[in-house]
Amino acid sequence: MIKYSLKDDYSEGAHPKIIEKLLQTNLQQENGYGNDIFSDKAKQEIKNKIGVSDAEIHFVTGGTQANLTVIASLLKPYESVIAAESAHIAMNETGAIEATGHKIHSVKAYDGKVKCKEIQEVLDVFNNEHHVKPKVVFISNTTEIGSLYSKKELTDLSNFCKKNNLLLYMDGARLGSALSSKYNDLSLPEIAKLVDVFYIGGTKNGALLGEAVVIVNDNLKANFRFHMKQRGALLPKGRLLGIQFLELFKEDLFFEIGRHENAMATKLAEGIKNLGFDFLTKPVSNQLFPILPNNLIKEISKKYDFHIWEKKTNEKSAIRLVCSWATKEYVIDEFLADIKNKL
Amino acid sequence: MIKYSLKDDYSEGAHPKIIEKLLQTNLQQENGYGNDIFSDKAKQEIKNKIGVSDAEIHFVTGGTQANLTVIASLLKPYESVIAAESAHIAMNETGAIEATGHKIHSVKAYDGKVKCKEIQEVLDVFNNEHHVKPKVVFISNTTEIGSLYSKKELTDLSNFCKKNNLLLYMDGARLGSALSSKYNDLSLPEIAKLVDVFYIGGTKNGALLGEAVVIVNDNLKANFRFHMKQRGALLPKGRLLGIQFLELFKEDLFFEIGRHENAMATKLAEGIKNLGFDFLTKPVSNQLFPILPNNLIKEISKKYDFHIWEKKTNEKSAIRLVCSWATKEYVIDEFLADIKNKL
Amino acid sequence: MIKYSLKDDYSEGAHPKIIEKLLQTNLQQENGYGNDIFSDKAKQEIKNKIGVSDAEIHFVTGGTQANLTVIASLLKPYESVIAAESAHIAMNETGAIEATGHKIHSVKAYDGKVKCKEIQEVLDVFNNEHHVKPKVVFISNTTEIGSLYSKKELTDLSNFCKKNNLLLYMDGARLGSALSSKYNDLSLPEIAKLVDVFYIGGTKNGALLGEAVVIVNDNLKANFRFHMKQRGALLPKGRLLGIQFLELFKEDLFFEIGRHENAMATKLAEGIKNLGFDFLTKPVSNQLFPILPNNLIKEISKKYDFHIWEKKTNEKSAIRLVCSWATKEYVIDEFLADIKNKL
Amino acid sequence: MIKYSLKDDYSEGAHPKIIEKLLQTNLQQENGYGNDIFSDKAKQEIKNKIGVSDAEIHFVTGGTQANLTVIASLLKPYESVIAAESAHIAMNETGAIEATGHKIHSVKAYDGKVKCKEIQEVLDVFNNEHHVKPKVVFISNTTEIGSLYSKKELTDLSNFCKKNNLLLYMDGARLGSALSSKYNDLSLPEIAKLVDVFYIGGTKNGALLGEAVVIVNDNLKANFRFHMKQRGALLPKGRLLGIQFLELFKEDLFFEIGRHENAMATKLAEGIKNLGFDFLTKPVSNQLFPILPNNLIKEISKKYDFHIWEKKTNEKSAIRLVCSWATKEYVIDEFLADIKNKL
Repeated sequence: MIKYSLKDDYSEGAHPKIIEKLLQTNLQQENGYGNDIFSDKAKQEIKNKIGVSDAEIHFVTGGTQANLTVIASLLKPYESVIAAESAHIAMNETGAIEATGHKIHSVKAYDGKVKCKEIQEVLDVFNNEHHVKPKVVFISNTTEIGSLYSKKELTDLSNFCKKNNLLLYMDGARLGSALSSKYNDLSLPEIAKLVDVFYIGGTKNGALLGEAVVIVNDNLKANFRFHMKQRGALLPKGRLLGIQFLELFKEDLFFEIGRHENAMATKLAEGIKNLGFDFLTKPVSNQLFPILPNNLIKEISKKYDFHIWEKKTNEKSAIRLVCSWATKEYVIDEFLADIKNKL
Repeated sequence: MIKYSLKDDYSEGAHPKIIEKLLQTNLQQENGYGNDIFSDKAKQEIKNKIGVSDAEIHFVTGGTQANLTVIASLLKPYESVIAAESAHIAMNETGAIEATGHKIHSVKAYDGKVKCKEIQEVLDVFNNEHHVKPKVVFISNTTEIGSLYSKKELTDLSNFCKKNNLLLYMDGARLGSALSSKYNDLSLPEIAKLVDVFYIGGTKNGALLGEAVVIVNDNLKANFRFHMKQRGALLPKGRLLGIQFLELFKEDLFFEIGRHENAMATKLAEGIKNLGFDFLTKPVSNQLFPILPNNLIKEISKKYDFHIWEKKTNEKSAIRLVCSWATKEYVIDEFLADIKNKL
Repeated sequence: MIKYSLKDDYSEGAHPKIIEKLLQTNLQQENGYGNDIFSDKAKQEIKNKIGVSDAEIHFVTGGTQANLTVIASLLKPYESVIAAESAHIAMNETGAIEATGHKIHSVKAYDGKVKCKEIQEVLDVFNNEHHVKPKVVFISNTTEIGSLYSKKELTDLSNFCKKNNLLLYMDGARLGSALSSKYNDLSLPEIAKLVDVFYIGGTKNGALLGEAVVIVNDNLKANFRFHMKQRGALLPKGRLLGIQFLELFKEDLFFEIGRHENAMATKLAEGIKNLGFDFLTKPVSNQLFPILPNNLIKEISKKYDFHIWEKKTNEKSAIRLVCSWATKEYVIDEFLADIKNKL
Repeated sequence: MIKYSLKDDYSEGAHPKIIEKLLQTNLQQENGYGNDIFSDKAKQEIKNKIGVSDAEIHFVTGGTQANLTVIASLLKPYESVIAAESAHIAMNETGAIEATGHKIHSVKAYDGKVKCKEIQEVLDVFNNEHHVKPKVVFISNTTEIGSLYSKKELTDLSNFCKKNNLLLYMDGARLGSALSSKYNDLSLPEIAKLVDVFYIGGTKNGALLGEAVVIVNDNLKANFRFHMKQRGALLPKGRLLGIQFLELFKEDLFFEIGRHENAMATKLAEGIKNLGFDFLTKPVSNQLFPILPNNLIKEISKKYDFHIWEKKTNEKSAIRLVCSWATKEYVIDEFLADIKNKL
């Protein structure tokens, strides 16, 4: 029996509109390396959506590549980056940032979010030439554990960074879900005003692959394509990324997908809550971390695929459930019914 | 007026069979990061084609990424790589190899091909701890200027490398055209016996993107996925690469595309030759470098897109013409007629 | 008024016997780059002292250079090093290790010492290709806060590392003080059996500069001079290091200096204890961290130079006092008398 | 029999005045890491000598370390350095520059000197994001084969670099010999005006070790000590370097040593010329490359130590002879007499 996967948001291919567009445009000849008409238009659409007409936008194939290319472009050899201890760059990128020569300071963040206090503590200690010099603050929105930055939180971070001559960089692998959450009070234009660089995730929001790096800070714009080429991030058929982002942003598809992911996740979360279960972190986006009895986990794992996230007690563990652009409502219903039946 | 491009082999999308397969499989749920059923099957098909049942095969998104990930995996910090002065890694990857910490020795190669004599000259000089230690020989087949390695040449290189404790790595960005050339006398199984690592290019042979890294030497197989993840080469939707390589290798599509590219290029080359023009290098693959009068170049550039490769005299220059999976025969006819008309 | 410095163990030049030897040998012609007769003899003396006749020994100019050269030589690109959060490589080397491409896992260590439990916790999490692969455990003896590894502790670490396929590397910047402490139960031969690589510090134990890297594990010996040259660690006049280590090890000078440092520190510690003050960490080597009232600190800082290490309460702080080969007993007496007078 | 070495300028220890000063100052307590009074004074003396009161000066332990620390500080990840094919960084530093991530373009230079024409050729080719971006021009004075830059040559290079937004960096490992040559028409203040960064070599001009990095270009001054610490170039007993450079520059010792080296070399060159022998390059500094019959080379190698540089014909080879601060005139006389006797 093939299990249904709620393991992540990259188990299916691309949103049908995107696949359709790839098919339609397939024979059209275009310039290589991102100099195609689709990439140009996609960049224009994104600029319109973020309200920054002179932002520098570049499409790369994945999140780790986005992070390592951006961060290496921002730092001098002796500079470092501050991130939450759960940050993707600190935990899940096989030392990609260090491989470009830079230290990551991992700071405590029970909810996955970096706070000014913890940044200040790093600055207090790392303050002369015997230490690396902290320069970039890395945040993810949504975070790696599904939480969201509020407008207040992001504004505080932004002000703190400006005051301390730090750069603020947001990993938006799941920005689609973040911006579409009912708990969100941030807009794309606001984010573009508050950070120096961010990326808008395509892979986990309906694309086959692709992330849109957006450089807002004027000082950081020069020669980014050199960095991309050096890191293997400049695709000969760059049209592949341009076409997808054009489809996502020419109308509302990017947000539509985010809303669908969240709607499915919300239904799933409420169903689980109604059955009396608690969550590791408050469910606010397309990633949920319900805490379930181990025997129940064992039962449902026969039919569904998901990650066991962490052991809570000898009897209970948190699992991760993720909804994607392709998650079907009837599967949620069935999953909830299956849990109910096992109780 | 939109020009017809003969500029490169990545101006169009993917071969229709590949696009079709992406569409068909789009909703099927699969494991991420290359652990999907398509990637598994594609690897099996490639192993069958190369006749090495325990080869390690990995799919990455592009050629620069393949080169930097492979080469960084093969070298200790003080080791270096020898390549032709025209090699992609030496000229066209923005220092990607050096960015992983390694020197490239550029050796003379009038025909784009590395020879034992030039390798020996490097070994003679770089022979103690005051110098880097040469360890990898990098070759491209076809080369960056469209030439081919013969079985004799590759065997000589292979023997020389084994004798001198060097590793031989082949960049096969255009291996499809190479193996399908009427001038070729090498087979995939023979290449797999003669080199330690090579990659089979998808991007320039009908795929949207993707290169298949093939590790034949047992000592080099361990932990390659760590290298991939660190360099940003492990795609969440790895299926995208697996599906494409499965389509290319499950039957004969990879070679069929190579043959088409070469057939179109051959027709083009013969037509140009018949009009009395010479070539920078003998036309044997899908890249041609005819030497044309500058005023003729100017005329045809109104209707066709191509690279001006190098100035030969004040009156003549070599241009580069490339045929892809999508090049139409009537375009070749038209192009030749257009030249004839301008004479 | 010039203050007397108890700030560190590198405020004076070299032990007089060393300076004397430099003078005596100055005109003797020798081979460069460490191939001189003094370096040869010094290596032989050290091999005799550690009881490993085939150890590979190399002299480098400083501790950061030793650490970055050794660690970069031990790791593949995706491998990482585990160290105490207070470790010199984690805190005080300006990202030297990361600049060679490698992540440091900082583990909790209230007493400056790495324990198996914390290493195991890292191994439990970093266990597949999405994470760096821990490979080296870095320890300092004495530690950065003056504590010592016992034979039991080092044996446990060594066994744990062997069992888990990890390499154990000891930074011995202050190994002279460690081995000469009355609390020490480890010998040089025992250390050489328990670790894979270590370095014996000269700079902080009577030399002008210089650390002796000792490679015990056979697998790690090849081509270390290539690593040295690449990192700028191979001195043309390598004799400078050889002469100093020969002087330190041909008889007992290295340990004599350690004993002197410790004797001065012990006298100082006991005097401070007798005056009723406590210490941040138990005084067992040439670094002391007494906790003193802030007004007393202010008073004595008029006459003595030292680091204020950390604030304990609003009224009290820990300071760092260090004794060197050159510390005079009368200064200790005077310092203690000065404190007493200020109470 | 112990041979007399004319192999290099680092076979003896330091100039007696330097050793003497180390002895005299040995017990004086000083701040660590280059913040000592000797380093301060030495920097002031050098500033006076170069006539740039706000130059940034830093002392490091050796030439490879100077080169890798400086060059890594000047370049963004995608930028490269242009050097003569015989340059120390290209040939004799085991890939130290590449290990910091940067490509070296080796240009033809029959006389060891980089010329504008060859730089321009690199700029013509490496001119977009598919290539590294050349940024630094590296020159050595004297060069690795003993030649000198004239004022005209250096001015041309300087103007060319300014015009092309390149930085000019001079490796002055043997600047003492260069500036003291009778063929030299450059002064220290002139060099300081024409280059952006240079280093003044101590190791090969009478010091035990040490090079003085001089940063003249204001844009390049910030945070150099961070780079130094990260590369292992910040010595705890930095006084060791300060004392030596103070001795070299407080009066005229640096130039006196250069004149002695050159005087000995000139006498040696003229003697060899008078015996009818030719040279690989014109003898103008403390390195000579006479071309001698192989049987003569064999004979004199019984009594003298030197490098055989390169084979010229089956009968003749060029050897390298080097004079140092310690070379005695009677040895030159004896060497010449020995040759004469063997003819």
